[in-house]
Amino acid sequence: MTGVAAGLVEDLAGVVGPDQVLTGEPAVEDYGHDEALAVHAAIPAAVVWPRSAAEVAGVLRVATDRSVPVTARGSGTGLSGAAVPVPGGLVVSFERMAAILEIDVDNHVAVVQPGVTLTQLDEATAGYGLVYPVYPGELSGSLGGNVATNAGGMRAVRYGVTRNQVLGLEAVLPTGEVIRTGGKLAKTSTGYDLTQLIIGSEGTLALVTEATLRLYPRAAHQATVLAPFGSVDEVAAAVPKVVASGVGPLILEYLDAFTMAAITHAQQLDLGVPAEVRENAQAYLLVMLESNHDDRLSADTERLGELLTDLGATEVYVLPGPSARRLVEAREKTFWTAKAAGAHDIVDVVVPRASIPEFLRAARAIAERHGSHVLGCGHAGDGNVHLAVFQADDTVRAALLRELFDAGMTLGGMISGEHGIGRCKREHFLALTDPVTIALMRRIKRAFDPAGILNPGVLLDQ
Amino acid sequence: MTGVAAGLVEDLAGVVGPDQVLTGEPAVEDYGHDEALAVHAAIPAAVVWPRSAAEVAGVLRVATDRSVPVTARGSGTGLSGAAVPVPGGLVVSFERMAAILEIDVDNHVAVVQPGVTLTQLDEATAGYGLVYPVYPGELSGSLGGNVATNAGGMRAVRYGVTRNQVLGLEAVLPTGEVIRTGGKLAKTSTGYDLTQLIIGSEGTLALVTEATLRLYPRAAHQATVLAPFGSVDEVAAAVPKVVASGVGPLILEYLDAFTMAAITHAQQLDLGVPAEVRENAQAYLLVMLESNHDDRLSADTERLGELLTDLGATEVYVLPGPSARRLVEAREKTFWTAKAAGAHDIVDVVVPRASIPEFLRAARAIAERHGSHVLGCGHAGDGNVHLAVFQADDTVRAALLRELFDAGMTLGGMISGEHGIGRCKREHFLALTDPVTIALMRRIKRAFDPAGILNPGVLLDQ
Repeated sequence: MTGVAAGLVEDLAGVVGPDQVLTGEPAVEDYGHDEALAVHAAIPAAVVWPRSAAEVAGVLRVATDRSVPVTARGSGTGLSGAAVPVPGGLVVSFERMAAILEIDVDNHVAVVQPGVTLTQLDEATAGYGLVYPVYPGELSGSLGGNVATNAGGMRAVRYGVTRNQVLGLEAVLPTGEVIRTGGKLAKTSTGYDLTQLIIGSEGTLALVTEATLRLYPRAAHQATVLAPFGSVDEVAAAVPKVVASGVGPLILEYLDAFTMAAITHAQQLDLGVPAEVRENAQAYLLVMLESNHDDRLSADTERLGELLTDLGATEVYVLPGPSARRLVEAREKTFWTAKAAGAHDIVDVVVPRASIPEFLRAARAIAERHGSHVLGCGHAGDGNVHLAVFQADDTVRAALLRELFDAGMTLGGMISGEHGIGRCKREHFLALTDPVTIALMRRIKRAFDPAGILNPGVLLDQ
Repeated sequence: MTGVAAGLVEDLAGVVGPDQVLTGEPAVEDYGHDEALAVHAAIPAAVVWPRSAAEVAGVLRVATDRSVPVTARGSGTGLSGAAVPVPGGLVVSFERMAAILEIDVDNHVAVVQPGVTLTQLDEATAGYGLVYPVYPGELSGSLGGNVATNAGGMRAVRYGVTRNQVLGLEAVLPTGEVIRTGGKLAKTSTGYDLTQLIIGSEGTLALVTEATLRLYPRAAHQATVLAPFGSVDEVAAAVPKVVASGVGPLILEYLDAFTMAAITHAQQLDLGVPAEVRENAQAYLLVMLESNHDDRLSADTERLGELLTDLGATEVYVLPGPSARRLVEAREKTFWTAKAAGAHDIVDVVVPRASIPEFLRAARAIAERHGSHVLGCGHAGDGNVHLAVFQADDTVRAALLRELFDAGMTLGGMISGEHGIGRCKREHFLALTDPVTIALMRRIKRAFDPAGILNPGVLLDQ
């Protein structure tokens, strides 16, 4: 350990106590990466586990005094390298700030510390007949991490993303000043919306120490429909019609045939789709409906089935509960299936939902030109396309990704719908975004973090 | 006209043409105020009507060069003085940028210029079976103004406020640089959310020249229920139960007995509520439901009626269509009724919805202490309480308002739910808000507007 690191650890121990600071390999090694496939791990000088906003403030004052870069970490399940520290920097882990502070039934609100996981919150709200609806693939993800990336997931088509659920925050600025934004309030028009500015900022503006989240009545019944189609274009064309029909889907996902085969095989899942139907299916639409009324759900499911048939589905399967649950779980695990299949990167471009077919055609052409494969699935109702990229050569893959992002942006889309930019996509983001916008974002960054200690190299340059 | 103003007008005419610039009283007098009751009008040096983002950019370059303060103006229906210019400043009116650029049916999106009114957009979307759901009292309000104040209204309990509908913006910085944020995208995690930062910033960060708005399927059927209660507390206590019931109200308003009497009298509206019921009613709950299915609507309306009876409603009236429409219209016009009744100010504090009874008790006590009256109604589902303040003395009224805002904030609320801070409430906002937060907002303001030419004196100090 260098002298600087030793002094740092001593200062941090003075704030949080010696048991809450860790230094030295291999102990800190696990804190050097997240789940991003294409970013190199880094060894931090130390990991610290604060237990309160006051301790986070103390930690940030130490880091500011010593000009040590700080990376916040929830569960480390991010896919863009935003939780990968600067080598020799400090990781602030929120694993020991994982309390659900309040479930407020009258206001339909939960107040949580950032280390609370989605699973933990789901279990806590279920007893009250309430639900926190954000449902990204990884339910071990923390709410702090969800706020940092503006996590989305399968239910966003009905309930929106993290941004739409966070009503207020407590956050610590790099100076150690603590701010509170918003509250148990569905609306406010009282100054700049700092809540929304911090959401999705990937740990570069402030460290979130508490979040006030919107809850909803938990619907009693769900129905799941799986529809194979002869082409991805037909699937994509069906999406706006399903949304416009008014059935209000909870989930509206597409999966290409390869991805469906891979995840059902990985999970040893037999959906009862005959071999001849599978052979002719190029893509699948997965639709889930929910309701408090069993009879309304049945009527809507029937109506949805007729609509999908009219839109060209070769078959319409209403999946029994257990199969439906296992398919949704398998869909959640797409990332792991793609990783196991040897994917070199995962991207999640977002485009206007009606532009999905055009984007997928462009993606196939780009991949072909680079002798690569891109395969995937996506949140069809949101226009959020998740693609596994198979191309081992870093240079070729970088060129392919640049073209892929550019194609999405040309269609009015953006680089990421829910994974964030992180370290992995920073260069692409800086190269493809209007310089006036980047300059403005840099000025906003300075307004929060003039010394640039918060997650340097994530989103913007160091 | 001073020499400076003459030169200004000449420069502006060079950008937009001489027909699009106006100077000199009484011509510009109408542009010196909005609908705020408690702010003094001001005479601008000139009013300019740009017709494109490029012209807005040119106008802002002129203003920056000449250090002339700039106030953007939509329909001038704001209630906080955010459209009141600095004396001798420049008003940029968006009346001639009032085109609906696109209704995109597949993506459920409208792209509009800032001068488009809510009425205009409602008429344009109706033909497609779509709806833009934000429904503040004043439907002649412009979308640009709605974005500037984060307008809310009666339907926010179901659909959210302006912030939840705006997917992207085109905006001009004071330098004349044009940025585009977001897009036809329900989600994105690609850099700081500039869209959300500009929404609700009351013309102090950038001038919005285009907005991309989310549309929804327009429901076919509506039902309206009016329930008198013996006390405001009972009404407020009923609100969380109605939300939790899952009927998904489109509108959930409370009106105190005085306000109900005033608006029905002003609109000469007979709701068929017998005199003895009216005499015993201290407050009313107004609930509107919507559905595409007539049978489901009937079942939900019946269920709602039973619930309200259980919760202490003295009667439950299902209003016939015409009466319902007229009552909602009368509710929209509450501001005008209060103004006609001689109210000296209107405020719209927002608190956690379960805290409405406590806030109303505090408000009554504060008013009594100051020998004043506060009466009103509000968006009960959102905790947004609209109060007409009757107190002619400016000093007494300022003290009363300070206490009222403080009481709301003590309950976890904020000064304004949807009207904004503007000029009227700036001093209260600066005095009652944590100085760390104010300092951060000032730094954000400087990141957009280093010369401070955009709406100085609104929200923050000049």
